[in-house]
Amino acid sequence: MELGEVQGYPRPLTVVSHIITLTTDFGLSDPYVASMKGVILSINPDAVIADITHAVEPQQIEQGVFLLAAACPYFPSGSIHVAVVDPGVGTERRAIALATPVGTFVGPDNGILSAALPDQARRAAGEKPHPVPLPPGTAAHLLTNERFHRIQVSATFHGRDIFAPVAAHLSRGVPLDELGPPVGEIMALPPFRARSQPDGSLLGRVIHIDRFGNLITDVRAEQLPPPLPLVVEIAGRRIRGLSPTYGHGTGLLALIGSSGFLEIALRQGSAALELGAHPGDSLLVRGA
Amino acid sequence: MELGEVQGYPRPLTVVSHIITLTTDFGLSDPYVASMKGVILSINPDAVIADITHAVEPQQIEQGVFLLAAACPYFPSGSIHVAVVDPGVGTERRAIALATPVGTFVGPDNGILSAALPDQARRAAGEKPHPVPLPPGTAAHLLTNERFHRIQVSATFHGRDIFAPVAAHLSRGVPLDELGPPVGEIMALPPFRARSQPDGSLLGRVIHIDRFGNLITDVRAEQLPPPLPLVVEIAGRRIRGLSPTYGHGTGLLALIGSSGFLEIALRQGSAALELGAHPGDSLLVRGA
Amino acid sequence: MELGEVQGYPRPLTVVSHIITLTTDFGLSDPYVASMKGVILSINPDAVIADITHAVEPQQIEQGVFLLAAACPYFPSGSIHVAVVDPGVGTERRAIALATPVGTFVGPDNGILSAALPDQARRAAGEKPHPVPLPPGTAAHLLTNERFHRIQVSATFHGRDIFAPVAAHLSRGVPLDELGPPVGEIMALPPFRARSQPDGSLLGRVIHIDRFGNLITDVRAEQLPPPLPLVVEIAGRRIRGLSPTYGHGTGLLALIGSSGFLEIALRQGSAALELGAHPGDSLLVRGA
Repeated sequence: MELGEVQGYPRPLTVVSHIITLTTDFGLSDPYVASMKGVILSINPDAVIADITHAVEPQQIEQGVFLLAAACPYFPSGSIHVAVVDPGVGTERRAIALATPVGTFVGPDNGILSAALPDQARRAAGEKPHPVPLPPGTAAHLLTNERFHRIQVSATFHGRDIFAPVAAHLSRGVPLDELGPPVGEIMALPPFRARSQPDGSLLGRVIHIDRFGNLITDVRAEQLPPPLPLVVEIAGRRIRGLSPTYGHGTGLLALIGSSGFLEIALRQGSAALELGAHPGDSLLVRGA
Repeated sequence: MELGEVQGYPRPLTVVSHIITLTTDFGLSDPYVASMKGVILSINPDAVIADITHAVEPQQIEQGVFLLAAACPYFPSGSIHVAVVDPGVGTERRAIALATPVGTFVGPDNGILSAALPDQARRAAGEKPHPVPLPPGTAAHLLTNERFHRIQVSATFHGRDIFAPVAAHLSRGVPLDELGPPVGEIMALPPFRARSQPDGSLLGRVIHIDRFGNLITDVRAEQLPPPLPLVVEIAGRRIRGLSPTYGHGTGLLALIGSSGFLEIALRQGSAALELGAHPGDSLLVRGA
Repeated sequence: MELGEVQGYPRPLTVVSHIITLTTDFGLSDPYVASMKGVILSINPDAVIADITHAVEPQQIEQGVFLLAAACPYFPSGSIHVAVVDPGVGTERRAIALATPVGTFVGPDNGILSAALPDQARRAAGEKPHPVPLPPGTAAHLLTNERFHRIQVSATFHGRDIFAPVAAHLSRGVPLDELGPPVGEIMALPPFRARSQPDGSLLGRVIHIDRFGNLITDVRAEQLPPPLPLVVEIAGRRIRGLSPTYGHGTGLLALIGSSGFLEIALRQGSAALELGAHPGDSLLVRGA
């Protein structure tokens, strides 16, 4: 029995999906995203390309991980997710395709592909970005086979010249193991998860601020103690209890958002403006 | 003869279109829009999803109505239009699918679906948002049948958990009346239409400012008196006559824009900046 | 032998591609782009529409040319590229479809279609926008046949009423010469190319600033002298040598970007902010 079968994959591992998503820090004002789409459609005219977002802050890998991880579970399993937040493009960082039961992820091996990994696997990274072993049921290959790249590869735009064409070839059924040699480790970011303090409280962090000014934190629903008068302390303010929705209560609210994380919101307003909050700010959750 | 037939619809009312449009206030920097697209493609991989806009100002239902109403007539009849500007998500507001001869509209019953209604029907709302009877040739059903929702419905993101999956199921041919019980009234906003004053002038309002700084008003082409030296008064300035295009004349211009409303523009500049204008500002149109 | 055959085209010239790209200055907050997409899908429900960008600065034709020219080569040949940056809409400027070996371009004849022309052809414009003869292998037709327009054509939105429907009809196989009479000249902008100075240096210009704050200039890779200690002078600063990537070196960098132009970048920062630079700013490249 081959390793691939043990892991639940047929051998050779083949992706067949016409859906390719894109997550980048390229914005929509430059020719970069369109160039990637053109390359994909040139290789697979039947590909369906969906933008996850191109508004990742320049080179903010962690934000890219959060956004991709939040959206990718809603796409059909088998979808191909291209993620390009790539400050080290053209340097020695590796390029990788990572196949998982929920889809195949293509991008630089700089931590951005953490979005594809379960928390269990990411925990091995420790306190900061670090290579971790591939979790069971996944396989990763280096993107070294130039047959699946654009003929001329620039030093500065692997999104267009390597990641887009590889994704397009995968969507046409090219087996993963033709892309390059397998790898056993992948760079991972620690999971988004608040820290339990010795006194039983949770020390969390704002990981994203959305368009409505809601603060999305790394405090997960399942980390919260059983229902009791919770208190959230953030920016010198105290919020008591959890609201079921944005439409209940007045003033600052704490609630479990649609991605399963604790959020701080302001009814009919922006919590971020009200609190002067930024990604990275800390908060404390404890019993009343 | 059944009611459906009287109204010109076959029974059961079935939508068959692979085109689904999205109008939201979610922006493009968060995972929300992509999550909706993923849900749609998971249910109907052949859906063609077109963004109308995701830049509705947060929770500005009236602006959402204007933008959706301005764009939806250009899509094939039968298209499915999902509109999510939903400050009351998770509270008692209803969720609805509204079938009309031009397409099927899916969203919260908070006035946003006014975009689907002819002015005649919206007039029944009076001076402010109010439920109105469904106009002839339309049918509306509550979205209560959980079979067409995501298995777990969050309290805060019905766009992803109810509206997107319902739209995808409609696009695969699920009959409207399987979604839930019919309703006879729908929340509507008054039509965009300037008020006739006793002295024969029109009192209008800026309803949208576009990227070029053009002020789009609620003064409709057909409300204007026959050609004569019209005068528009706005922000202490007077504009005489109508220009045929943005490229004629100098300084501030008044013209009939591409949606049939009176617009105020500035040749090679932004009328909004020139006038310090905002949505909601009033203007007066009268004979010279 | 007919002219069309000499030029390498079958007669009648027919476009068959389901891919239509859009480049406009309409932004994504208004109903304009969606209206164009609706019109296209109404005529050809199988069209695949890809945005190049809608963030061209209002009425900045040259920026539109740069962005379209940078992205369009990556789309399949035969694609239809609609470009609408159209300050003169509704005035006497012509509307044109231009077929080339790499694709068919549809838009106003105000210089925006320069993106489709080789430098060789654009050079005939001289120092500023001017009509130039069509290069060999291309054909252009006026869009005067109203059969392929929307039934009612507004004076202010030819993107929706002429260019989008013409593109959709082309994508369904309507021959180019049915659109209107042929034309032999097209408005062109001079090529993006730095000027050689009498002392051997190159006088260049910033033509675009991207989301990362990189300055993209009109100095082409092939204009640079053979490898030697180049010096770039810009905004009172001097940059020595070329970096292979954004990830090498420190401080301000000069490198050849992914479109083949010299770029000025700042490692882990924005060169535009660092230099206070704007499109149109000049720079000098010379030997050390």
